[in-house]
Amino acid sequence: MIDPGAVREAVRKKKARREEFLGYEYLRFSDDFENIPRGTALFPDGEVFGYPHIGRIFMLERGISDQFKAPFWVEEKVDGFNVRVFRSGEGVIALSRGGYICPFSTDRLKDFIDLTFFEENPDFVLCCEVAGPENPYIEESPPYISSDISFFVFDIMRKGSGEFLSHREKTQLIERYSLPAVEVFGLFENKDVQTLKDLMLKLDREGREGIVLKEDLPEGKRAKYITESANLSDIKITASNMLQLPAEYYTNRIMRIVLFMEEEGIERTRHLYEELGRAFIDGLFSAIEQFKKEGKVSREFRCRFRSREMALAQIELLKRTSRHIQVIHKDLYEEDGYYVLVFEKVFLNMTGLLGHLLSGGLVFD
Amino acid sequence: MIDPGAVREAVRKKKARREEFLGYEYLRFSDDFENIPRGTALFPDGEVFGYPHIGRIFMLERGISDQFKAPFWVEEKVDGFNVRVFRSGEGVIALSRGGYICPFSTDRLKDFIDLTFFEENPDFVLCCEVAGPENPYIEESPPYISSDISFFVFDIMRKGSGEFLSHREKTQLIERYSLPAVEVFGLFENKDVQTLKDLMLKLDREGREGIVLKEDLPEGKRAKYITESANLSDIKITASNMLQLPAEYYTNRIMRIVLFMEEEGIERTRHLYEELGRAFIDGLFSAIEQFKKEGKVSREFRCRFRSREMALAQIELLKRTSRHIQVIHKDLYEEDGYYVLVFEKVFLNMTGLLGHLLSGGLVFD
Repeated sequence: MIDPGAVREAVRKKKARREEFLGYEYLRFSDDFENIPRGTALFPDGEVFGYPHIGRIFMLERGISDQFKAPFWVEEKVDGFNVRVFRSGEGVIALSRGGYICPFSTDRLKDFIDLTFFEENPDFVLCCEVAGPENPYIEESPPYISSDISFFVFDIMRKGSGEFLSHREKTQLIERYSLPAVEVFGLFENKDVQTLKDLMLKLDREGREGIVLKEDLPEGKRAKYITESANLSDIKITASNMLQLPAEYYTNRIMRIVLFMEEEGIERTRHLYEELGRAFIDGLFSAIEQFKKEGKVSREFRCRFRSREMALAQIELLKRTSRHIQVIHKDLYEEDGYYVLVFEKVFLNMTGLLGHLLSGGLVFD
Repeated sequence: MIDPGAVREAVRKKKARREEFLGYEYLRFSDDFENIPRGTALFPDGEVFGYPHIGRIFMLERGISDQFKAPFWVEEKVDGFNVRVFRSGEGVIALSRGGYICPFSTDRLKDFIDLTFFEENPDFVLCCEVAGPENPYIEESPPYISSDISFFVFDIMRKGSGEFLSHREKTQLIERYSLPAVEVFGLFENKDVQTLKDLMLKLDREGREGIVLKEDLPEGKRAKYITESANLSDIKITASNMLQLPAEYYTNRIMRIVLFMEEEGIERTRHLYEELGRAFIDGLFSAIEQFKKEGKVSREFRCRFRSREMALAQIELLKRTSRHIQVIHKDLYEEDGYYVLVFEKVFLNMTGLLGHLLSGGLVFD
């Protein structure tokens, strides 16, 4: 249990704040504070810890020999957004990484997850990736999800302590409740590096994001490793919107691409050079074209809800929490038993900068 | 003249500090302070103002119509480093942009500039670009300088006020003393935009950096505009060393490249995509290769001095002022009447990061 003194101190330092949303009242840690991770949420009936940061390795072979002393499980890293799903009061809710109740995931989880799990395991938290093209947050999605979204359980956490269940316990629960889960590639050791390199090349070809390596308890050391194609795709998708992200987002990914090539012995071909250049140049041109046509740089999002109220709550949350982004509610209509929410995110920094530059403005850099 | 009260205030706030170097004592403004630019230097016999920032336009046509109401001179922007050269006491010295006495430029200026100028014009400051492959600061140099360096006068400034001479006065002095100067492409107006676009395409093909546009006095408005090839070359040359520069250095240049293409109607070809990708990927690979061979990422510099003492002073200055860079003096030998100084800059951030990543280290990003 979290020490009440630490909680008071966090509130005083504005690292934790009271939230009221969708009928729930709780305390949300908006930043890491002492050993309490950002996104931790204190509900009257339980403490849900923030999902911990997982360090990234840039080199596979040296990375696993440096990081792991024991065998480790290797699971797919799915390209979506992280939610923690659990029971509170009479309901089941999903918290975003930052600790906000996510209306979308809360509304849709019953389409994917057997709620019996929460009745029978009120003290467990399902850590899931929500991924797919029709989500309200991110533009990327795994190649094998062609519409809507899916949930992928990758960890089960205990309320109150934030500890994860062992791989065996987790697997048993996933099986018992037929929970949708990330693909597990198996248990590996350092000497299996060639198998893992081959696996990464396969995931890279398939346009999948990468892997998470997890030593089992008690050590529980973890690391993630990403494919070249995922890094390239990050650049491609965000370049039209370059100013919303820290510039390090790009230099970091270029570094990862080059080290992936180095690790896998991928040759530097013209095609590869071309792909990287194209990711930047075409992305920016699409922003310029949109700006010239519409006077703004924006992206349209579309996602399905079971409940109309939750769709409206989603818009409210996005408006309240988006920085340098204007959220415009465009449509909400019924289709096939769902409410389809359509909204637009206008990227204000990129819109402002392009407006300034294209009209001949000066920049002192 | 600068108000003595402002000077005292700047010293108190550590924006100006006393320097003693090469027998000169002066006060150097290490930051902009009120209306006094960074690099301003107060000598007992005169005040030399910092060279003012010139804003950059990213679009030529809209840029000139937005920025200039009167005709403007267009001069070549030479890719080198900026020094201000003037007489102080019995000597003639060159100050770097930041206001340090540059031993290299001070030592070599007499090879390029007729010192009679300073005897007859002790109150004038020659603002010059020093460019060429053998300089102690930067790795890029104009394509038309194959060895050593040259000086290129582009402005003449008055001591005490920081005002520039008019184009006519400047040109007369350049002619009278046969001073080496930047190429002047002529006097232009907004309606000449097509000529300027053609000029930029020519400079781009020739691998030259770009142009500076200067309205004459009294307005004296200024702007700079850079070729695509110069931006690409910046990326290519610095990518091996990506961590020494702010990440915005790269995103900014990608943006400039795309807007140059947009302005000039340059088609997006595979070749162009490839060049951008290659700039990043080959640069980083060369850093990795060097690290694996030598355990460090570094660059060797070589430059010629008239005087041995000034070569040693250069090393001293570099060691004193370089941040996150280790300067290693490697050689100093006589050749053809010069002292050739050889030194190495070890890029500590890049060396540290690559060491961490290549040995399998974790990064929390």
